[in-house]
Amino acid sequence: MRKPHERLAEACAEEMAAVNALIRARMASEHAPRIPEVTAHLVEAGGKRVRPLLTVACAKLFGYDGQDHVKLAATVEFIHTATLLHDDVVDESRQRRGRPTANLLWDNQSSVLVGDYLFARSFQLMVETGSLRVLDILSGAAATIAEGEVLQLTAARNLSTTEATWLQIVRGKTAALFEAAAEVGGVVAGASEDQVRALAEFGDALGVSFQIVDDWLDYGGAGDGIGKNLGDDFREGKLTLPVIRALARGDDAERAFWREALEKGRADDFARAREIVTRHGTLEETRAEALAWRNRAVSALGRLPDGPLRGMLADLADYVVARPA
Amino acid sequence: MRKPHERLAEACAEEMAAVNALIRARMASEHAPRIPEVTAHLVEAGGKRVRPLLTVACAKLFGYDGQDHVKLAATVEFIHTATLLHDDVVDESRQRRGRPTANLLWDNQSSVLVGDYLFARSFQLMVETGSLRVLDILSGAAATIAEGEVLQLTAARNLSTTEATWLQIVRGKTAALFEAAAEVGGVVAGASEDQVRALAEFGDALGVSFQIVDDWLDYGGAGDGIGKNLGDDFREGKLTLPVIRALARGDDAERAFWREALEKGRADDFARAREIVTRHGTLEETRAEALAWRNRAVSALGRLPDGPLRGMLADLADYVVARPA
Repeated sequence: MRKPHERLAEACAEEMAAVNALIRARMASEHAPRIPEVTAHLVEAGGKRVRPLLTVACAKLFGYDGQDHVKLAATVEFIHTATLLHDDVVDESRQRRGRPTANLLWDNQSSVLVGDYLFARSFQLMVETGSLRVLDILSGAAATIAEGEVLQLTAARNLSTTEATWLQIVRGKTAALFEAAAEVGGVVAGASEDQVRALAEFGDALGVSFQIVDDWLDYGGAGDGIGKNLGDDFREGKLTLPVIRALARGDDAERAFWREALEKGRADDFARAREIVTRHGTLEETRAEALAWRNRAVSALGRLPDGPLRGMLADLADYVVARPA
Repeated sequence: MRKPHERLAEACAEEMAAVNALIRARMASEHAPRIPEVTAHLVEAGGKRVRPLLTVACAKLFGYDGQDHVKLAATVEFIHTATLLHDDVVDESRQRRGRPTANLLWDNQSSVLVGDYLFARSFQLMVETGSLRVLDILSGAAATIAEGEVLQLTAARNLSTTEATWLQIVRGKTAALFEAAAEVGGVVAGASEDQVRALAEFGDALGVSFQIVDDWLDYGGAGDGIGKNLGDDFREGKLTLPVIRALARGDDAERAFWREALEKGRADDFARAREIVTRHGTLEETRAEALAWRNRAVSALGRLPDGPLRGMLADLADYVVARPA
């Protein structure tokens, strides 16, 4: 049984082949071979390409038959790849998509500068569409992403982080680009104002639920040994939803535990952290929160043209919250 | 006696006040106070604002009386500030404009992410002009800058670096943004095709001569104790023009010296390096090369409307090559 993103990829196979060809063509550099080397390492590691798929599918939903959705899908993947390169430097990560990170294989310098190059290339690509509306949406998304990353940096190890700040970080990390990816697909395809708004709401809600599941998995998952490990967020001092809510309900002893672990970075008792978020029910609430955002995503889809693609997008929203622990 | 960039700043005082106000307004972040903190540290350290001045002056040269040149000047300064933040991470710098660098005062993470935010903000600003031509020029410049930085990274400590590669690095480091800054000023002011080309040539040549003088100063200067120190390029293993040419003319003993110093990073005998580039005359040739690019800059100015602003731009080109050692 194929997964929803695989069926979506099959329905958009022709466009996605064009997207991949465009990515390969534009990651080239006449002068600096380091650029395609680093980019290829990440691009060819087999990410699911969910973001470019969203752009292509959301344009096809309206019967679009031009080429701008392909350009914008490649744009979105370049922005995503650039943020991954910079994230891995910021987090000092050693693994990504089951492979050593670029900062480990080359160095931090290459990751920073190749990321900058991909950002610049993404802007060149979107300029080629000639749509100022698309440029406005994507440059705004890029600002929200960077702002969310800075916010995450300064909120880490800060026990007074609010749910509002946490949601802003979630938007920056994931939802802003999902939202823009879906929205620009509709814009180039000439969707109505309400449909474009529905696409933006769908992308945003899909991205938020995706990220909440990620936060949930860090405490509630089984750990897959590949990519993200159980307890990574805990050890990095990240204030995610299960922790923010458990903190608010805990007694003095628990608050002292979180302060030691997250503020002072002595996060050596993950089992206790897990016990606390389970006992207060905040882990379960986090999962329910992800489901609520999944429902918003599906409800936004109701305002879009019916058909097989819309069904696959709804399945994608289901799949996101049902990801295996 | 005021310096040329000071007279230019005075002639554009009103616009530059608007540029500074716009920079302050747009570096704000509703959610992440770290962003304006880091940006202000660099923006208010009193750089000369040569790049935004170029944009404003090149628009005023054609009697432009709109507001887009102010937006584009702020755009250009944001791009410049973002590259400085990332450069200091890449070079592990500790001083910039006579103050500790942001990566030292905060951390590498903040420098990378705030730089990304400023890039995104710069794109938002340029999109507001609604000029696709301007967007094309500036996104192309951003790609050339990042490509040049990667090239510099991979060319460092590589004795087979050619003059062509070196010039490409110079364009990326400095000339690409000077060129774009001048060019977009003319574009928004409605200059003719030939005038826009002349502005681009002027900016490019000014930037190349500026960077060559910088390379020269590293071996030929007296070292001002503030900012850049004598021999920094040598210790960082950078292949600049005086070294590339001295290498081609040196005997086996000299080649062994450069290999030890630059390739293997044992650059402990700067006096000998200086003696070699002086004896082969390549230090003097480097200065002559800077003068030749200054002449190209002034000659391009000849195709632009005559008047006091054009005179100041010519003085700026003189000042760049006459910078005190």
